[in-house]
Amino acid sequence: MALASVLHYWRVNFLLKTHRGLLLFLFILSPAIFFFPTLSAAQAAPQLKLIPVPSSVQLGTGQLIIDSSFSIAVTGDDDGTVKDGIDRFVAQLSRQTGIPFKRGAGNGTSKLTIHAQHKRESTQKLSEDESYELTVSQTGAELRAPNSLGILHGLQTFLQLEQPTTAGFAVPVVTIKDAPRFAWRGLMIDVCRHFIPLDVLKRNVDGMAAVKLNVLHLHLSDHEGFRIESKKFPKLQEDGSNGSYYTQAEMREFIAYARDRGVRVLPEFDVPGHSRSWLVGYPELASGPGPYSLVSNVDPVMDPTQEATYKFLDKFIGEMAGLFPDAYFHIGGDEVDGKQWDANPKIQDFIRTHGMKNNQDLQAYFNQRLQKIVSKHHKIMIGWDEVLHPDLPKSIVVQSWRGPQSLAVAAKQGYSNLLSSGYYLDLIWPASRHYAVDPISGDAAALSPEEKSKILGGEACMWAELVTRESIDSRIWPRTGAIAERLWSPAEVQDVGSMYRRLGELSWRLELLGLTHKSAPREMLHRMLGSDDVSALRVLADVVEPVKDYTRAESIKRPADSSVPLNRLVDAVSPESDVARNFRDLVQTFIKSGYKDQESERQIRSWLTKWSENDAKLDPELEQSFLLQETEPLSADLSAVSAAGLAALDYLDKSEASPDAWRVQQMSLMTSAKTAKAEVLLMIVDPVQQLVDASAHSQMP
Amino acid sequence: MALASVLHYWRVNFLLKTHRGLLLFLFILSPAIFFFPTLSAAQAAPQLKLIPVPSSVQLGTGQLIIDSSFSIAVTGDDDGTVKDGIDRFVAQLSRQTGIPFKRGAGNGTSKLTIHAQHKRESTQKLSEDESYELTVSQTGAELRAPNSLGILHGLQTFLQLEQPTTAGFAVPVVTIKDAPRFAWRGLMIDVCRHFIPLDVLKRNVDGMAAVKLNVLHLHLSDHEGFRIESKKFPKLQEDGSNGSYYTQAEMREFIAYARDRGVRVLPEFDVPGHSRSWLVGYPELASGPGPYSLVSNVDPVMDPTQEATYKFLDKFIGEMAGLFPDAYFHIGGDEVDGKQWDANPKIQDFIRTHGMKNNQDLQAYFNQRLQKIVSKHHKIMIGWDEVLHPDLPKSIVVQSWRGPQSLAVAAKQGYSNLLSSGYYLDLIWPASRHYAVDPISGDAAALSPEEKSKILGGEACMWAELVTRESIDSRIWPRTGAIAERLWSPAEVQDVGSMYRRLGELSWRLELLGLTHKSAPREMLHRMLGSDDVSALRVLADVVEPVKDYTRAESIKRPADSSVPLNRLVDAVSPESDVARNFRDLVQTFIKSGYKDQESERQIRSWLTKWSENDAKLDPELEQSFLLQETEPLSADLSAVSAAGLAALDYLDKSEASPDAWRVQQMSLMTSAKTAKAEVLLMIVDPVQQLVDASAHSQMP
Repeated sequence: MALASVLHYWRVNFLLKTHRGLLLFLFILSPAIFFFPTLSAAQAAPQLKLIPVPSSVQLGTGQLIIDSSFSIAVTGDDDGTVKDGIDRFVAQLSRQTGIPFKRGAGNGTSKLTIHAQHKRESTQKLSEDESYELTVSQTGAELRAPNSLGILHGLQTFLQLEQPTTAGFAVPVVTIKDAPRFAWRGLMIDVCRHFIPLDVLKRNVDGMAAVKLNVLHLHLSDHEGFRIESKKFPKLQEDGSNGSYYTQAEMREFIAYARDRGVRVLPEFDVPGHSRSWLVGYPELASGPGPYSLVSNVDPVMDPTQEATYKFLDKFIGEMAGLFPDAYFHIGGDEVDGKQWDANPKIQDFIRTHGMKNNQDLQAYFNQRLQKIVSKHHKIMIGWDEVLHPDLPKSIVVQSWRGPQSLAVAAKQGYSNLLSSGYYLDLIWPASRHYAVDPISGDAAALSPEEKSKILGGEACMWAELVTRESIDSRIWPRTGAIAERLWSPAEVQDVGSMYRRLGELSWRLELLGLTHKSAPREMLHRMLGSDDVSALRVLADVVEPVKDYTRAESIKRPADSSVPLNRLVDAVSPESDVARNFRDLVQTFIKSGYKDQESERQIRSWLTKWSENDAKLDPELEQSFLLQETEPLSADLSAVSAAGLAALDYLDKSEASPDAWRVQQMSLMTSAKTAKAEVLLMIVDPVQQLVDASAHSQMP
Repeated sequence: MALASVLHYWRVNFLLKTHRGLLLFLFILSPAIFFFPTLSAAQAAPQLKLIPVPSSVQLGTGQLIIDSSFSIAVTGDDDGTVKDGIDRFVAQLSRQTGIPFKRGAGNGTSKLTIHAQHKRESTQKLSEDESYELTVSQTGAELRAPNSLGILHGLQTFLQLEQPTTAGFAVPVVTIKDAPRFAWRGLMIDVCRHFIPLDVLKRNVDGMAAVKLNVLHLHLSDHEGFRIESKKFPKLQEDGSNGSYYTQAEMREFIAYARDRGVRVLPEFDVPGHSRSWLVGYPELASGPGPYSLVSNVDPVMDPTQEATYKFLDKFIGEMAGLFPDAYFHIGGDEVDGKQWDANPKIQDFIRTHGMKNNQDLQAYFNQRLQKIVSKHHKIMIGWDEVLHPDLPKSIVVQSWRGPQSLAVAAKQGYSNLLSSGYYLDLIWPASRHYAVDPISGDAAALSPEEKSKILGGEACMWAELVTRESIDSRIWPRTGAIAERLWSPAEVQDVGSMYRRLGELSWRLELLGLTHKSAPREMLHRMLGSDDVSALRVLADVVEPVKDYTRAESIKRPADSSVPLNRLVDAVSPESDVARNFRDLVQTFIKSGYKDQESERQIRSWLTKWSENDAKLDPELEQSFLLQETEPLSADLSAVSAAGLAALDYLDKSEASPDAWRVQQMSLMTSAKTAKAEVLLMIVDPVQQLVDASAHSQMP
């Protein structure tokens, strides 16, 4: 397509990127400052809801109708990935439309032609080209890519383009040229603190593929559980897992499943700390006297001063290097608790006699030894922040959980690295907060291009102290879509409102794909109440969020004891309340209009009325359930705060200043309502408080 | 437990039944006419939500707490069914509570002891004892049964007893003695018109087990598809299935799955009519010249006059008799289209030379020959109504689709029989209508006890012209729970209000079990609208129902062409609107109170207000989707009818008679609003019309 024909532009900022020798055009569009003559046409065009936003989107006029006659033709190379990818694509397109497509029918008018130039690598590589070009006209679509990885990404884009229109299900006429900003776009799942079965992991891999993530990092061992079968050291899983682990056969099948979807599986075995589960079966590896049991307050560390430890790890890593084909191997290395080392004279003696200064030096020694073992088994070692030490070769990769500044430090020293700080899903942040975290920002923004190239990407992290197989989807999705966009899309893609609209679109499509982030929490409400009618409870659940950061983890003595049920309201509510966010936006609109916008006031009143009446119905229900009694004050707060909001609106409507005494009273209510109860936060207090504040000045001008 | 200690009774009528030689006590309790001194205590007790209602329930005081320490001990015989049943029980108890139970922990205070006296039959038999006794005290529970089938049923009862209380998840102190009224309690699923994959069948078997159904009747062949692999006649599935069929290995695994859950699998191969799919590959069996194709207007019939047909069926039935272990074998035999027989001189000649009067006699001849073949392969033949003919041996079983009177006719003639008339789920009736159908009613009620014993039970029937793998759960559940109760519970259990309350309870528990009757339709709304926000569409969807009986099937030329998408609003709405039913109840309450009950009026107004405002938000959304444009008049009706209802309430409140002219206008609106649109019916018109009617007489008395 000639550039002259590029007439319509999508509203979101975009970057027309090059690959394979084309010129680089960089447009950083913001409609307010940079107008194309035809922008109004673009605004009238159907709003695309792609996530992540592609590098380049040229929206045309018209659309390609998707009906029963839709067919697919493959003209390029196929290593099996394309065929399997098309099968899944057709199945999801059926789910998204309700049309029972038949493979190979193919005499239809609308046709997608797929062409991959080359086979993909036999083991998926970090450097592998993932780009693709998708061209849709009114009569057909063409998807081209250097290899089948790009084809998989392009098929996901096509699925996101499909939407119902007045004329039928359709994909808009569009030309998309797309490639990722970062090569490493991961999701880490901790399967130790709560065991996550493979069917749950599989549907999460489906979700990852939908947003073009390409690395599933499995945190396979930690104090609380050892989750993979070792044939060489069977006591690892037998004594260290309570029976919940993956067999090697299962893992092989799972790795193939992930590969089919363009996702690498990176294994992590956390050593020398976080290793209690190893030491239950093999206490001789520990730095202190055993025996050890899975659930305990002792956090033992492996003994880095004895050769037996390295012999064991050599055999073990050799076995695992054979099972996991990925080029990288994660050895954890974080949060080594020095107590056992301090208490062991033999170890302190070793430190002194080897000229080390402290435990950190000892860990660096351990890591050096380990790196040689990992390297001997043809893998590249990755570790968390703490492994960064000048004695280690530049070939290792550092994953930062501490903060973005360590990325710059590592890159400057020549180490490749990944960002995870800012992407911890267990901290229950809003998507917008993760979205604002860029791997190349702060100190890293000042790096040289070569140093910047050391920043490989990042990983969202799902630590599992407080999630189960039941709730994990709701903690990962849809928020991970925002992180996926940060890692794939041009850095300039920053519009938070647009991101949330597209995240909402992603959300229901992911449920159709099999994820349960919306449906599972809904069922949890039923069982807490023991009732089919959860309407009033839902009203409350929709406006609260779990407490943030480590507040909840710190309130629990043994957060990692998986026998503690996670079945309270805090476990069933979304990390982010869409209702509360939309309500905040409504109140902003109303305030910005000088309290004149009648439609936003009508909607605000409608919400506040519903909430103010809710406690009368809900409280008697909450009383009946031991799980919900703790939420009674919360329900009372919702109704009381909403009543205050209605009263404030009345003052505003009457153009009458609210009495000072009344406002003082309401402010005390707001302060109390902002306090977490039952470990959840009521998210509509701030906007109501703004209305109450405003009512002080509601006299006629 | 001595009878003297029977102090508390459940509110539902119950029957204290006997088995194994106890005396028979029959209580048909209705609190209004028959008061025990302690009935008020019973009313205060937690409301049990068992479905089907057991034969006998004695509710005690207190409850057994279910917490992490809950354990299970097996003391009796176990043929594997008990162990597997307990595994599933524990998994579902975990889903119902969120507590991660560990098998075999067992040092807890609350314990369930399970004792089966004998092994079950190696092939599940119709006559097998399914009774059980469940006794729950504050310190433990005991489940006893003659064999593991009763144990499975008792475990389901236990799961339904579990509910959240103020003190924890708990099961009430209770003694239940339970046994089914009918031995044959089935669900037929047509897997021909739309292929239903095994994973969907499996979750439906789970649902069947939850409500104590024990026969899954698979309608495996029909004009539109042949759904099981034949190794002897591979063209049956190769040419007759479009590639959608079960392999024998899959079916064997599925039969074992069903057996584990106490469910027999009854195969049906419909002959000599409904057989187009057989004749695509084997046209030589037909009564008219081929060739045949799956989708066509020709309804061919097998040729009963040639020996080749019987040779074929002998070999085929022999093969299937080996695959399906059940003692019964269904040969269909319904709706033979006589056109091909009439048109074939050879066949007409055969009729004359064999002294037959008509095609019916020829079919009887066919059935006699077939019965001998089925019998030769050690199976008991079942057929639909039409197979009933005096020439057939009394050993066959007749399944009635025509009407309950044919049951009495068959029983009088000495034939065993099953009722399906009145239990057709595809007619989209309310649960209450199925619930009112009793196999022993009408003519059958006057039968002798011996004749009555010929009535084995019944089967709900899910014909699949208009359901897909996606919507089938929502057509089967929860309504089938009402039919299951009719077939299991004492005939006196008739309280429709109670049935609906318990059906609602069943509904959310079934979703936890894996059924998708609530979640799948929800997703369909998203894709029709192409949006995450389906709140306004949901308001409309919640108050409509699909058209009833064969209205929709008749409006479609080829209802059985599975390539036609079933993705409209009619496919996504529940067969029965809970919201509309509850609204009708509210209006009844209000009317009965002489328009004085303020709480019901407040709720009625709240609904009417919501509905009257809905079209303003919804209509612009509907306009954008080709699938939803047809529902625009429906949305307009909902808002207009609701506005009329609000106006009627205003007249009633003002004690002012509404003007005649206004009412005439509203009645015209109501008449139009009652007409089906987009093949759905607006279910709130009747109660609103009652309000409008009432407003004519709303003067002060």
